[in-house]
Amino acid sequence: MAGRRVIGWAARDPSGHLSPYSFNLRQTRAEDVVLKVLYCGVDHTDLHIIRSEIASASYPLVPGHEVVGEIVELGAEVKNFKVGDIVGVGGLVWSCGDCFCCKSNMEQYCNQRIFTYNGVDLDGRTTQGGYSSAMVVHKNFLVRIPDKLSPEQAAALLCAGVTAYSPLRQFSGCNEPLKAGILGLGGVGHMGVLIAKAMGHHVTVISSSDKKREEALKHLGADAFLVSSDVEEVEKATNSLDYILDTVPVVHPLETYLSFLKPNGKLIIVGAPPNPLQFIASQIITGKKTISGSFIGSIEDTQELLDFWAKKGLTSMIEVVKMDYVNKAFERMERNDVRYRFVLDVAGSNLE
Amino acid sequence: MAGRRVIGWAARDPSGHLSPYSFNLRQTRAEDVVLKVLYCGVDHTDLHIIRSEIASASYPLVPGHEVVGEIVELGAEVKNFKVGDIVGVGGLVWSCGDCFCCKSNMEQYCNQRIFTYNGVDLDGRTTQGGYSSAMVVHKNFLVRIPDKLSPEQAAALLCAGVTAYSPLRQFSGCNEPLKAGILGLGGVGHMGVLIAKAMGHHVTVISSSDKKREEALKHLGADAFLVSSDVEEVEKATNSLDYILDTVPVVHPLETYLSFLKPNGKLIIVGAPPNPLQFIASQIITGKKTISGSFIGSIEDTQELLDFWAKKGLTSMIEVVKMDYVNKAFERMERNDVRYRFVLDVAGSNLE
Repeated sequence: MAGRRVIGWAARDPSGHLSPYSFNLRQTRAEDVVLKVLYCGVDHTDLHIIRSEIASASYPLVPGHEVVGEIVELGAEVKNFKVGDIVGVGGLVWSCGDCFCCKSNMEQYCNQRIFTYNGVDLDGRTTQGGYSSAMVVHKNFLVRIPDKLSPEQAAALLCAGVTAYSPLRQFSGCNEPLKAGILGLGGVGHMGVLIAKAMGHHVTVISSSDKKREEALKHLGADAFLVSSDVEEVEKATNSLDYILDTVPVVHPLETYLSFLKPNGKLIIVGAPPNPLQFIASQIITGKKTISGSFIGSIEDTQELLDFWAKKGLTSMIEVVKMDYVNKAFERMERNDVRYRFVLDVAGSNLE
Repeated sequence: MAGRRVIGWAARDPSGHLSPYSFNLRQTRAEDVVLKVLYCGVDHTDLHIIRSEIASASYPLVPGHEVVGEIVELGAEVKNFKVGDIVGVGGLVWSCGDCFCCKSNMEQYCNQRIFTYNGVDLDGRTTQGGYSSAMVVHKNFLVRIPDKLSPEQAAALLCAGVTAYSPLRQFSGCNEPLKAGILGLGGVGHMGVLIAKAMGHHVTVISSSDKKREEALKHLGADAFLVSSDVEEVEKATNSLDYILDTVPVVHPLETYLSFLKPNGKLIIVGAPPNPLQFIASQIITGKKTISGSFIGSIEDTQELLDFWAKKGLTSMIEVVKMDYVNKAFERMERNDVRYRFVLDVAGSNLE
């Protein structure tokens, strides 16, 4: 028996062009909720996935993994939410619950995880994301949107925000004001600046050119701006940073960035270039540097970020557009013509 | 005014051939001690340095940075040692004492550090190492050899031992028995097996061939042996290790080794290949892996290791030889014909 019929915007082939698509949600199980989707963030990964560039895409495919919605129906076993609650869904809609990762607040690394769209659901169907009038989601993969937070602001936190926040959490209890570097000023990078500043860190935005200096310092409130092609600036920045959040999704030489790190400093990679990255072992040995990766964030991380964001009164920079603008939004995102994230006003787009 | 005249074995040119060399130590300063050298370990790095392969070597050059000696003279300000004490000297003989690294038990990363030999001393002279009848060393760069430890056993701990111990210290307080991997079974690798076992970890020796299986399991007491070219074994080992100590000093592909790590797992690199290493960003992102480097160890680390070694009653595998065997020892070390470390019986070689 199929669940309710909804309208999403789906890609039909690797062109990635989206158009309206009518499909049935799965039937609501005892631990599921049904959401009316209000807003959904647009992530660069969406484009790669619908074009079948990361894994094989299963068409028709409705993307969207930064979903904010209102609960309109509850399964019998859902006790911690009620109809009318505003909740969020990020990159995952299921994990095994039993493994080391699931038991350690790292379910995003569970090897049975099911992604919010283009995943294979427990019933064998392809999961469909939040570019859709409604969704069915297991209660364990919901976060609660704080009252103080507008739903469109919350949307961009559910992937871009938590991708920056999850690896930075480890620094939040530090007594000394840490020196942070943010490499790349896109969706995730701009979240990194805001979060690191809100944690009290001294934030340097690192860029290959001078173009974003004013943006970084004036609009995002960074403390410093470092041009990585300026030999003199690079020399001065040696051994100066405690960590660098590296959001650059294309191949880049790490040597210069590693030189900015103090001993014990960490380069945290969250953007995945398609080709291998290189490093010089003697540099990380004699300088005691660390290179690590981090992938989105757990439900606990995400809830913590939402609460942190509300408590600190932070505001990210987003551009809210209607659903029928989505193909244009992808085009603009591809040429970095967005400050810094598109959010789709799904409920305001009258999909049904 | 020059200090006492001593006999060391020095290289005179990049051939690296060693022969007797008479030179003056620096005059003993108030915070210095004079050591009669008893034993000195032979490190693979010695060979690279005297051949001018790492940095430009300043000839004549007396190598040796795993030095155990007996104090024969004290400067006026040395209160914590007395004549007759058995002490050790590792890779460093000075650091600034003021910087972040020096104040954080990481003086080996101080950017003013002076290496035990081929360094430029405060008086501008080249430092000379422990392949010598005597040395003058600042009191802050001495460790105390526990009574229970024989001096020849202690020697190999001062570089090979602490190179393995320093990065493994972080795991010593862990309640759960960690799963360790040791990659490469040379001087440092064999120390890694002994130390990780003594910390209660489950130790897997990882090797490219089956040749060292018996050695690892029977003689060193490892729990498991994994051949990294065996597809089936590699598959089974996925996500199984908490850390890998990587001692391999030649270029090697990291992808397989990273696949052995659990989420949050750490690849710790202590061997420095001359060419860059590569990794795939998406592997460390979606698998939450860390690659880090570690360089020898601090004085505090070294003292802790010596005390740990004595308390646990550990024994490393060394081959003690006289000074006039040193060129032969280098030859054998180059073709890995040593289990696992040569130690020079300096005092027994009647240099003077």
